[in-house]
Amino acid sequence: MTVLILTCEQDVTADMVVAELNGAGVPVVRLDPADLPGGVALSGEYVHGSFHGHLSTSGRLVSTDGLRSIWIRRPGEPAAHVAEPSAWLTEETSQALYGMLHATGARWMNRPEAARRARRKPWQLHLAQRSGLPVPATLITTFPQAARDFAARFPDLVVKPVSGTHPEDPPRAVPTSRIAPDADFAAVAFGPTLLQRRIAKRADIRLTAVGERLLAARKPAAPDPDHVDVRFAPSVGPWQPVDVPASIATGVHTYLREAELAYGAFDFVEDSDGIWWFLECNQSGQFGFVELDTGQPIAATVAKWLAGPEPESEPHATPATRPT
Amino acid sequence: MTVLILTCEQDVTADMVVAELNGAGVPVVRLDPADLPGGVALSGEYVHGSFHGHLSTSGRLVSTDGLRSIWIRRPGEPAAHVAEPSAWLTEETSQALYGMLHATGARWMNRPEAARRARRKPWQLHLAQRSGLPVPATLITTFPQAARDFAARFPDLVVKPVSGTHPEDPPRAVPTSRIAPDADFAAVAFGPTLLQRRIAKRADIRLTAVGERLLAARKPAAPDPDHVDVRFAPSVGPWQPVDVPASIATGVHTYLREAELAYGAFDFVEDSDGIWWFLECNQSGQFGFVELDTGQPIAATVAKWLAGPEPESEPHATPATRPT
Repeated sequence: MTVLILTCEQDVTADMVVAELNGAGVPVVRLDPADLPGGVALSGEYVHGSFHGHLSTSGRLVSTDGLRSIWIRRPGEPAAHVAEPSAWLTEETSQALYGMLHATGARWMNRPEAARRARRKPWQLHLAQRSGLPVPATLITTFPQAARDFAARFPDLVVKPVSGTHPEDPPRAVPTSRIAPDADFAAVAFGPTLLQRRIAKRADIRLTAVGERLLAARKPAAPDPDHVDVRFAPSVGPWQPVDVPASIATGVHTYLREAELAYGAFDFVEDSDGIWWFLECNQSGQFGFVELDTGQPIAATVAKWLAGPEPESEPHATPATRPT
Repeated sequence: MTVLILTCEQDVTADMVVAELNGAGVPVVRLDPADLPGGVALSGEYVHGSFHGHLSTSGRLVSTDGLRSIWIRRPGEPAAHVAEPSAWLTEETSQALYGMLHATGARWMNRPEAARRARRKPWQLHLAQRSGLPVPATLITTFPQAARDFAARFPDLVVKPVSGTHPEDPPRAVPTSRIAPDADFAAVAFGPTLLQRRIAKRADIRLTAVGERLLAARKPAAPDPDHVDVRFAPSVGPWQPVDVPASIATGVHTYLREAELAYGAFDFVEDSDGIWWFLECNQSGQFGFVELDTGQPIAATVAKWLAGPEPESEPHATPATRPT
């Protein structure tokens, strides 16, 4: 049984996992959907009530029946590398590839539809609440008066994008920033704005969840309270391994089960009382930088999950339920 | 409790359902996400471990806690009607709106992630097989030789798009067409191609599923076998109500349950033995033309589903009491 990895050519994180799988003798096929059609080819046949499919890349042919698991790492857009790309060919190719892969019994890290849902930050915040994780008071609004009222109640505020990354090419990270409570909130009417109570943090936490396994790392916060966003703050020390409090572990497992995710990179901030506050969960978050600092075996854990046996225990292997 | 309908302004199908709901005295809010921000506004607050949101449109304010159901009919792209549209604002607005609606306990027709998955035709074909519905032999391929082999086995063939509708503006329907078995299949290498055994049909069947209720209609086929696609064929009579064979009803219910859909418009063709062959299921398919011909109460059935029982309490972990 083969592990299928969908990612672009330049992906050192995938390289780390492939090395682990190679070391364990687990067959791997890695391909970029951008190379389909062309360097990658596919075929699937629906005859006599069943489906059989094949993928070929670099002279290798793999049966979709023989797929153990599928890791969607950082795939290119289908058909992006053809001579004359078009929205129509990308759509046809995307449907053919992902539609066919959905007809297999393989385990996913993560299922495309679960991944898509999991990217919605308003949904994340509510799921974190329901999962029992501490969530800083947050407002998402296009009502200027609602923003003013919220700022009066929570004057130490940050503003951040609702959706995450600006869809430029390449995508641009938009930093989280402090905002004064007496700011002019009139412009809120022109675009949904996310305001959040600023947590006076003593550390940032990155918790990487791989199946049931949780690996957390902690990095002391920069002393200047204006350095809200760890991605843009000066580093005051490396990431170091840290134990996960039991209540957080329970909350994270609940979150992943409800979100039907096999992988998630959780960002928390730790306040002066030691409470971990949920900020977000990136279902495709990087882990290389944490592994580099901490030596935690994240790539090996991902490889082990991908190589794992068929999945009675997987939360998203349960049969679909009727819509309510 | 209110029914929320997301659709564009010109939508006579939605008008029919709104009229039914009005007649039954069920509160309805109808809005187009394209009008957010602007004519539509939203606000959602995550405080003290729970979420409370509001939507406003045309001077009406509705609490997200008070939503009974959400019908995604034909919504515009979020933020499409602002003075200066951008991909970034559309993404922010989409995440804010749909993320917030996902945090409600409302019933969906249909859930966006289920709808998205259900659009993939390769997945549809396999799910139809698994649900016990007859599926014509089908090949999806980028291998010219696989196409030639398939054509040798099934010489009476049609070709159709993998993904459905060409993404022009406005979208263009691509007809299903016959193709000769000795055609030159070399071009298959340049784009995934869907070949299907042509069913010699004596009628087209449109089966509209609304929750548990199935309403089927039948239209005699045009005599010329080259008129494969009912959308482009000359009409030889109106749609007429027809009973659903028991095995088809079982298969359709299985399909909808697995697909997590509350609504689906199924296209079948009936062969000379009376067998209904599954072609596709459009999770947002039109029903007005069938209701017009047959008098079947489809709009009323949709309205009844939307007005249906109050949502159950959320099947999620009990929120713990947390500081905010």
